[in-house]
Amino acid sequence: MNFLEERILKDGVVKSNDVLKVDSFLNHQMDIDLTERIGREFKARFADRPITKVMTIETSGIAIAYPVARELGVPLLYAKKTDSINLDGEKYIAEVESEDGCCTDKIIVSKRYLSSDDHVLIIDDFLANGYTLQGLIALVESAEATIEGCGIVVEKGFLEGGWRIRNLGYRLESLAIIESMNAETGEIIFRNE
Amino acid sequence: MNFLEERILKDGVVKSNDVLKVDSFLNHQMDIDLTERIGREFKARFADRPITKVMTIETSGIAIAYPVARELGVPLLYAKKTDSINLDGEKYIAEVESEDGCCTDKIIVSKRYLSSDDHVLIIDDFLANGYTLQGLIALVESAEATIEGCGIVVEKGFLEGGWRIRNLGYRLESLAIIESMNAETGEIIFRNE
Repeated sequence: MNFLEERILKDGVVKSNDVLKVDSFLNHQMDIDLTERIGREFKARFADRPITKVMTIETSGIAIAYPVARELGVPLLYAKKTDSINLDGEKYIAEVESEDGCCTDKIIVSKRYLSSDDHVLIIDDFLANGYTLQGLIALVESAEATIEGCGIVVEKGFLEGGWRIRNLGYRLESLAIIESMNAETGEIIFRNE
Repeated sequence: MNFLEERILKDGVVKSNDVLKVDSFLNHQMDIDLTERIGREFKARFADRPITKVMTIETSGIAIAYPVARELGVPLLYAKKTDSINLDGEKYIAEVESEDGCCTDKIIVSKRYLSSDDHVLIIDDFLANGYTLQGLIALVESAEATIEGCGIVVEKGFLEGGWRIRNLGYRLESLAIIESMNAETGEIIFRNE
């Protein structure tokens, strides 16, 4: 069991059979020692790749991707979920199905900050059905940049996202993969890798 | 002129007389060397204060507040703009007027992560009319926590936010205060402190 799985068992709360609450240390209050360790872990896992940029999406991806970018010594780029006066000029836009499948949203990145010379590591906190991650991949591919891999903190292994992304041929590293959760008992089972 | 003012002159773009675009280095693509330096600068400016928590608000505050929290060795807490299944339980909620005055939004923080024992440094990227910062102050005061100060990266000195917050007696440190901008010439005048 790795440091993240231990922390999830200690402080994560199973809200339902598919909702894990980690807001005491990962996506509302942040334990910076933990996110720093996550940054070093992703650096180690992608050390063989010539990464030029770390990319994520607002909001909860940002504080995870920050230490990864710093460890790798490259800029951080975060895609936006809403257009604004500051996102003028040419943009790449991807349509993303919401994780519950009810609707689609746009995610946006300025063309200025992704080019065909870029080698991108995509980072996010959760992977469920993979729609958001597929949207981020689409943005990078719109720029004809190279995707060096995807780093996820918590993958819900009982949903299809991980299977879908790996099946498309992308390298996907998840620090914790949850095989199942039980809201009644609070039990969390991780996938052994 | 400090390092941030120099960078704003180099890479900031005056979009109108009150809109400065810094998305190449501060709120879309992030120059991590710069944000690390911002983190060290805020640590130095608030070194005399017994800070237990750094607080900001999603989205663009997060990657600024992250290195500040790390430098100070305390957790980072970011307020949310939308309610979610993960924000269950008791919450502090503040009503925040939008910067253009057209409407109000709620900002939310879980009661679990702010207590009367906390000494809070509030960090944000921009200060305009100060409504968001007043909302963050209201959240901290709801918890009867102590506000040790507010750290802002870019203050629009030609708007009322800075005056308003200082007038309320809070210690406010802004790394760059813009006195005026001219969209026609691109000129940016900083306040000399």
